[in-house]
Amino acid sequence: MEEQVETLGKAFVDHYYHLFDADRSSLSSLYQPSSMLTFEGQKFVGANDISAKLRALPFDHCKHAISTIDSQAAAATGGIVVFVSGSLQLLGEEHPLRFSQMFHLLPTIHGTFFVQNDIFRLNYG
Amino acid sequence: MEEQVETLGKAFVDHYYHLFDADRSSLSSLYQPSSMLTFEGQKFVGANDISAKLRALPFDHCKHAISTIDSQAAAATGGIVVFVSGSLQLLGEEHPLRFSQMFHLLPTIHGTFFVQNDIFRLNYG
Repeated sequence: MEEQVETLGKAFVDHYYHLFDADRSSLSSLYQPSSMLTFEGQKFVGANDISAKLRALPFDHCKHAISTIDSQAAAATGGIVVFVSGSLQLLGEEHPLRFSQMFHLLPTIHGTFFVQNDIFRLNYG
Repeated sequence: MEEQVETLGKAFVDHYYHLFDADRSSLSSLYQPSSMLTFEGQKFVGANDISAKLRALPFDHCKHAISTIDSQAAAATGGIVVFVSGSLQLLGEEHPLRFSQMFHLLPTIHGTFFVQNDIFRLNYG
């Protein structure tokens, strides 16, 4: 069970940041109307608003590099919590930005997962 | 509702790090047998093992300073997810350590919350 949770968490993280770096408008498929994003303290609710925020980020090309992924089963919901740390390289910028992000994933009726909770913070040294 | 979630999250964070800095053996009261802690990639399950890990950390005195607290309602459980960033000053060390930590809190039958999921990571620049 615990091993499966780690595997699911890692698969989600790989998928999420691959979409983010390749075509971040496609991330909207991972959110639902109940989903919440807090991005550097700003709150967004629902796949539409979250997707609009992600599309509006002030850069076109970026590349995430993941440092750590920690996953746990979230009791009572069949969900998973995933905690990620890594860095974000923006095209044309010299230094990557360090970030931390957490996801609370819930199962869909199709046996996949969607993002119920998403909290993103840049790490300031 | 959202304001209440922020207030609950902040109250929990204040309480948690106050206990941590004042008498971290008392943190065991915030965990239950189902609780999970991942501390720098090491996994612990249940209040007893989690409490033992926290007591065994290789420092006696520390002081947390919180930089950001982001809280969201966690669907379907009546719970809350809380994401914290801050720094940890160890007695006798010159530089504080930056960290990020997430909690998934679930309600108890007494109307309070316990920690179901806890993931802690130091931030490396």
